[in-house]
Amino acid sequence: MLIVDSVSTNATTTRAGRPRSERTRLAILDAATDLALAGGAVPTVDAVASRAGVSRTTIYKWWPSTAAVLAEGLLERFHESIEFDDALPVRRAVTLQVDALVTLLRDTPAGELLRHLLAAAASDRTVGLAMLEQWLEPRRAQAAHHLERGVEQGTVRADVDPTLVVDVLFAPVYHRLVWGHAPLDHDLAAQVCDLVWPSIAAPAAAS
Amino acid sequence: MLIVDSVSTNATTTRAGRPRSERTRLAILDAATDLALAGGAVPTVDAVASRAGVSRTTIYKWWPSTAAVLAEGLLERFHESIEFDDALPVRRAVTLQVDALVTLLRDTPAGELLRHLLAAAASDRTVGLAMLEQWLEPRRAQAAHHLERGVEQGTVRADVDPTLVVDVLFAPVYHRLVWGHAPLDHDLAAQVCDLVWPSIAAPAAAS
Repeated sequence: MLIVDSVSTNATTTRAGRPRSERTRLAILDAATDLALAGGAVPTVDAVASRAGVSRTTIYKWWPSTAAVLAEGLLERFHESIEFDDALPVRRAVTLQVDALVTLLRDTPAGELLRHLLAAAASDRTVGLAMLEQWLEPRRAQAAHHLERGVEQGTVRADVDPTLVVDVLFAPVYHRLVWGHAPLDHDLAAQVCDLVWPSIAAPAAAS
Repeated sequence: MLIVDSVSTNATTTRAGRPRSERTRLAILDAATDLALAGGAVPTVDAVASRAGVSRTTIYKWWPSTAAVLAEGLLERFHESIEFDDALPVRRAVTLQVDALVTLLRDTPAGELLRHLLAAAASDRTVGLAMLEQWLEPRRAQAAHHLERGVEQGTVRADVDPTLVVDVLFAPVYHRLVWGHAPLDHDLAAQVCDLVWPSIAAPAAAS
């Protein structure tokens, strides 16, 4: 069995256990996400409050910072990019997930925004933690889920280290986004999976 | 034959073809590197000039920015971390290079500095270009050199894509530095190489 960090992917988890108005919550998440995608940075709490039609107090009641709002909003907005059917063969599901990240970062404002959020995270720990909890970990958990499915099916070796494998599969995408030394090619996901799969495929399933 | 981007790894290349005093050049590089490693950020030109005992004009005559000075200084300071003997077996040389990066980023102030330089690069193109030219590309070229050596020796498949392979080998290290989701383990380099090597080893040399 794979050991995976315990990560909640439930975007509706509330911070303080207090019941929220789901409509207000979504309005705040949408406001933060729209502003960030348009402006390429973490929006101010005043800008989010104004756009969502709520008070600053309402926002701070539920989130510690606008970075946390934004991170949750990005997960909500792009959640489909990490959800792939368990009916898909494992290698296909994982390749599609890597490719969805390539496409998201290359073809939408999310790529430039993520570069700026990672930059902000270098000097602001709250931004880093929010992005880790709401962006990276849910994505890692989904990928690890498919690898674990492969182990159960006997198509993935039982001794693979999911932390390592998920890093090796996804890191090249973030690496090219951050450094810009090579393009986010349309076949990057397939190429990375081709390179890694022989080592993680169970012997009977190797090809 | 592998196709590798043409990259100069000659740290003594001058910007404008003008002869430099090597001693003055090294004093400026050392000043910028010392200040950056101590302060975790790109130093101001005044600070570099003061510490090196030169004028601002002297610095701007040879470099477009202190980011460019710093990037060149970092290459000079940490050059040994990318130089491994051609007498080493290819897999060993590449593993040592990945491990040298892990150690450099984990155990020296270079790790925190690089995080801040990558952050600065998100909003300052000159920082990004300097880091790309003086940090990433020389390192990529060295790794590609060893892979090419493997192709010539018949231990590495002739059809490997060095851009992809170098990314997959080194990206997990930068990924963990930037996101901080997993440690820069002492065996990370060996683990990544173990995962990738079966796909790039030439059939006769596979094991």
